[in-house]
Amino acid sequence: MGNTFGHLFRITTFGESHGGGVGVVIDGCPPQLEISAEEIQVELDRRRPGQSKITTPRKETDTCEILSGVFEGKTLGTPISILVRNKDTRSQDYDEMAVKYRPSHADATYDAKYGIRNWQGGGRSSARETIGRVAAGAIAKKILRQVANVEVIGYVKRIKDLEGSVDPNTVTLEQVESNIVRCPDAECAERMIELIEQTGRQGNSVGGVVECVARNVPKGLGDPVFDKLEADIAKGVMSLPASKGFEIGSGFAGTLLTGIEHNDEFYIDENGETRTVTNRSGGIQGGISNGENIILRVAFKPTATIRKEQKTVTNEGEETILAGKGRHDPCVLPRAVPMVEAMVALVLCDHLLRYHGQCKVL
Amino acid sequence: MGNTFGHLFRITTFGESHGGGVGVVIDGCPPQLEISAEEIQVELDRRRPGQSKITTPRKETDTCEILSGVFEGKTLGTPISILVRNKDTRSQDYDEMAVKYRPSHADATYDAKYGIRNWQGGGRSSARETIGRVAAGAIAKKILRQVANVEVIGYVKRIKDLEGSVDPNTVTLEQVESNIVRCPDAECAERMIELIEQTGRQGNSVGGVVECVARNVPKGLGDPVFDKLEADIAKGVMSLPASKGFEIGSGFAGTLLTGIEHNDEFYIDENGETRTVTNRSGGIQGGISNGENIILRVAFKPTATIRKEQKTVTNEGEETILAGKGRHDPCVLPRAVPMVEAMVALVLCDHLLRYHGQCKVL
Amino acid sequence: MGNTFGHLFRITTFGESHGGGVGVVIDGCPPQLEISAEEIQVELDRRRPGQSKITTPRKETDTCEILSGVFEGKTLGTPISILVRNKDTRSQDYDEMAVKYRPSHADATYDAKYGIRNWQGGGRSSARETIGRVAAGAIAKKILRQVANVEVIGYVKRIKDLEGSVDPNTVTLEQVESNIVRCPDAECAERMIELIEQTGRQGNSVGGVVECVARNVPKGLGDPVFDKLEADIAKGVMSLPASKGFEIGSGFAGTLLTGIEHNDEFYIDENGETRTVTNRSGGIQGGISNGENIILRVAFKPTATIRKEQKTVTNEGEETILAGKGRHDPCVLPRAVPMVEAMVALVLCDHLLRYHGQCKVL
Amino acid sequence: MGNTFGHLFRITTFGESHGGGVGVVIDGCPPQLEISAEEIQVELDRRRPGQSKITTPRKETDTCEILSGVFEGKTLGTPISILVRNKDTRSQDYDEMAVKYRPSHADATYDAKYGIRNWQGGGRSSARETIGRVAAGAIAKKILRQVANVEVIGYVKRIKDLEGSVDPNTVTLEQVESNIVRCPDAECAERMIELIEQTGRQGNSVGGVVECVARNVPKGLGDPVFDKLEADIAKGVMSLPASKGFEIGSGFAGTLLTGIEHNDEFYIDENGETRTVTNRSGGIQGGISNGENIILRVAFKPTATIRKEQKTVTNEGEETILAGKGRHDPCVLPRAVPMVEAMVALVLCDHLLRYHGQCKVL
Repeated sequence: MGNTFGHLFRITTFGESHGGGVGVVIDGCPPQLEISAEEIQVELDRRRPGQSKITTPRKETDTCEILSGVFEGKTLGTPISILVRNKDTRSQDYDEMAVKYRPSHADATYDAKYGIRNWQGGGRSSARETIGRVAAGAIAKKILRQVANVEVIGYVKRIKDLEGSVDPNTVTLEQVESNIVRCPDAECAERMIELIEQTGRQGNSVGGVVECVARNVPKGLGDPVFDKLEADIAKGVMSLPASKGFEIGSGFAGTLLTGIEHNDEFYIDENGETRTVTNRSGGIQGGISNGENIILRVAFKPTATIRKEQKTVTNEGEETILAGKGRHDPCVLPRAVPMVEAMVALVLCDHLLRYHGQCKVL
Repeated sequence: MGNTFGHLFRITTFGESHGGGVGVVIDGCPPQLEISAEEIQVELDRRRPGQSKITTPRKETDTCEILSGVFEGKTLGTPISILVRNKDTRSQDYDEMAVKYRPSHADATYDAKYGIRNWQGGGRSSARETIGRVAAGAIAKKILRQVANVEVIGYVKRIKDLEGSVDPNTVTLEQVESNIVRCPDAECAERMIELIEQTGRQGNSVGGVVECVARNVPKGLGDPVFDKLEADIAKGVMSLPASKGFEIGSGFAGTLLTGIEHNDEFYIDENGETRTVTNRSGGIQGGISNGENIILRVAFKPTATIRKEQKTVTNEGEETILAGKGRHDPCVLPRAVPMVEAMVALVLCDHLLRYHGQCKVL
Repeated sequence: MGNTFGHLFRITTFGESHGGGVGVVIDGCPPQLEISAEEIQVELDRRRPGQSKITTPRKETDTCEILSGVFEGKTLGTPISILVRNKDTRSQDYDEMAVKYRPSHADATYDAKYGIRNWQGGGRSSARETIGRVAAGAIAKKILRQVANVEVIGYVKRIKDLEGSVDPNTVTLEQVESNIVRCPDAECAERMIELIEQTGRQGNSVGGVVECVARNVPKGLGDPVFDKLEADIAKGVMSLPASKGFEIGSGFAGTLLTGIEHNDEFYIDENGETRTVTNRSGGIQGGISNGENIILRVAFKPTATIRKEQKTVTNEGEETILAGKGRHDPCVLPRAVPMVEAMVALVLCDHLLRYHGQCKVL
Repeated sequence: MGNTFGHLFRITTFGESHGGGVGVVIDGCPPQLEISAEEIQVELDRRRPGQSKITTPRKETDTCEILSGVFEGKTLGTPISILVRNKDTRSQDYDEMAVKYRPSHADATYDAKYGIRNWQGGGRSSARETIGRVAAGAIAKKILRQVANVEVIGYVKRIKDLEGSVDPNTVTLEQVESNIVRCPDAECAERMIELIEQTGRQGNSVGGVVECVARNVPKGLGDPVFDKLEADIAKGVMSLPASKGFEIGSGFAGTLLTGIEHNDEFYIDENGETRTVTNRSGGIQGGISNGENIILRVAFKPTATIRKEQKTVTNEGEETILAGKGRHDPCVLPRAVPMVEAMVALVLCDHLLRYHGQCKVL
């Protein structure tokens, strides 16, 4: 049951990295939304490996096909199924993976749970699974934009110890996309790229932090008690491959403040709206959006696939050495940006539909 | 729909801080488990305000009653309903709260969403709601212990900038409960208590970090893709009042390492089990437990209720001053420990039942 | 997980016939609905045993208490928990039930599934469980009435072979409540009462058919494909104790017609609305309400509890005789009427909220 | 959210009759089950139009492709996605359908709900949607067979007023498949075929009743209270196109008996098993399987598509005449047999997994 996310705007992803293909079924999309495969493809291309010199050199075109739910360019309110075919790949590249567990991958746990796994390229645990999420996220973003001009923008905040200076309240998609590392701080971005390239040449990898902001979110989204908006977002982003931490608003750093320093005082703005002077709450109070910008951060560990020898064991229970060879992605962060955006957009869209109903929201 | 958590071991909490009472319905509990109100009460007493000099002085006895699902001391497999009555309280203490929004509380967002709220003592957004969670968590813990000797132990890791030194692999419940701040580092605990008392006297509050470990978790729990074990835990703890951040294993700090430094190499232990040399994964790989200790941390902001004047607004849209008076809890962390344990236990128990089925697990 | 029904308007019932009490938690109720325990009590009294000479003589007052979710007479949007205490009863009445399985009851299957059961008075499988449903149904009915003037009216259509003549398009609650058997055909009702009394004196029981109509249902409720309105209603009423069959519109009899005879032709009414000339569809087409009256029937078997000797077995696997003694209800149909109404109202309310959202519907 | 069915064995169907294709994602399938597209195709061919002279002459090959979840002939425990491509069809056949609502179809209600529909061939409301159900049902049946030798066998019990004589306790698949109408009573089957052919020549249609038996179902499946086995089955089959009624065991006819006549007395069989002498309960008591054969019936109305002129209206609100032309299926019953079997198997498999867990059941 773990392959479905959301309640009213609900996605189910499917597919292994090898086999027929990967994709998603989106149930609950409001009817009469204009949507095209091309729009979805734009987001998939941001997620795609091989899009720049600092990502994995695997050439995947990841062309999507809409199988259902859209008629004459508009959504029907019925399930939208999107398929991306897998390419024929030389699976002998992966022969070693059939028997040796890659450290910090899911090989061993899948075997423990299921007693079987598609060992080619990671199978279901491959980041390729996120294609379905990003495709669905493209639709969620469009709904959010149409209903309330909501913008969901992610960017690389930090690579290892290189942290960019970015204002989440004003950052634009253009700034994010202006460089291949997706850090809107141009000067820092250059150093990040240099670090990633150097690490990649060594066969090693680095991680970092993606920050994401959602602006213009209407007040009132989020269901106490368990389906608090930040709880649902936390689940969404912590279900992304390689994520190890989440924080909203002031996050872990906020624990260093006292209550009087941390509280967000209220005021009435020029439009008569109740607003907060500061935004340590990160746009959510009591689990419900308060109209301020929702700001969150996700920690991604350094990619587990590296070109270095590592001690490991076989599925027969024998200790062995995994030779580090073949292609690897020295840093997943730039490609993780659209993934984080997708999960945030999916959660917001789900709660928007809980609030307004599927057929009444647009 | 936001008041239900879990799928096979599923809890639904109810109740405001004022009114008839608060409680929980637990659906899916395995039959024939011996359980008593007394056992549940032990955990509720750990959560209770007024249990020590450093928590809120409100005297709540929080005595629980099991209304259903238990017969002659054993669970029936039917819903277990647990009720804790509210006390008659002088609601005039709260009169100001009827019109003035308390900063960084849920007053304003509840009004924005529902157009109505029980303004006495926080209503549904009160931490009193967690009584139901902790009661259910007591049962979840017992199931986990019986099935696989699983131990779920939380403790205060940090208060503001005072961080205790604790080994999650060996810490015991006795050590946690040996002092009122629930930090097993005795020396640090004293300084924490002093800080909390001093902050409380100033009418201010502090936050910090709770760390939690689950030991002896069987391999194979957790459902990829969205219901990864860490994703479900993240949702659970991020739905607790005042939580602002979550991390598993190496967490945010892990992003400062390179791949070769971060990866957990495998070996075969003396029992022929596949194990990892290090545990930066935090006991979960690919969303599935790998048999190592599950270790996680939760950031709690400083309590929003303080005894200081703050700028705020009324529900009529007028700016005003909220006088800081009355009782307050200078630090929620010691009481948050059983809450975090409960959420972790609930997630593990849910996945245990997915794996083994409700009636076959015990 | 079987104790929860609905998605956006979601109820969870709890409680055995003996023990602390029975009740319900209603999650998703729209805020600002005026509701009182008295209004709910009206429906509970229609469900109550002992309300007339033809029902079981057990005197249960079934007084309900609202524990949460209502403040100053209005719903908060938070979970509404309703509790009805059980009475102290002389459980020695039931001693035989501890070891002997009552034919066509749930005693044996509960033991097979759970290995334990509360054998006093049926435990969880007792019709007393429906108290929670009827209480929740009272609220659902009020929402439906306020939003769209929807009326949900059930009545006894048939007892054994005595079938009343009732027009579902015009029948009123007053007509239903005008006699104790709840059949609006007064002449037939008298014969039904006579049959039930005579059967009861013989220690035997009879069953029959409840018909239910929902009028003024807005067009567009119901989610294809699996959550068709009639599918959700079917699940709801088939989950009532003793129900053995369900039909909508033309039902089983409709299979005797040909297509040209069965099809509901369309016309435009005086308000310009698309209407159907006939209503063999029963108000639902393609799983979605079409604005015509929703008409359905539910078959209830004769009550399994009778005052006659029957062959049975013990929980130790020995054949034995169950002496028919004590009190019994010769016909559950009059009390089943509010149960059927409740399930229909709950389904309609759930779909109404899916359509309009929880906070926007009122 | 209406396109998903089941909890632990959970299917999501997608697709309109025209467009890219139709299919299903099956989440929760146990790992290591041997399955092939060929096995699934067998069931799809039983559902396919054009398989005999008495079904619709549309030639659909409905060849399925497994896109994911199967590796080297075995299931992985990950989602199984199955796709059947739609054929290019001359949509001008359907031009009239773009504006005129077909009586007793879903055209008008889809427009009322969504404001848009794929009017080609019924779109999402087409019986073509059941391809996904039948494909998933093929897998569910195989699991049931492997785990407990469960057999799920459906057949045509009645066409209009022609009722076959069939013993559900002994009927075989071979008998069902021995004639094109799928009625194991050979003599009656001939008369049914004659009736269907004659009706079809007149451009008219007939309905009837499908009976289905599940044998060797283990005791203990089914979750009281709302997820009673018969309630879940009722929902499943009442969500099939054209179904108007459901009954289990004695059904509507059982209401004509008295309690003493209807009750199923218990005895101990030669293996020491608790059994019932009669089976008016239909294999389920208190919502839980009792080990006896589960027997149920589903009423299907005469097909709405006929070749006769009918009064109708346009989507612009004007009255008009729908010319009856083109192809039509005079009786859906033979093709409904595998659909009913699929829904019954899906429900049983879901409850089997709740009982045993996904990874432990095989």
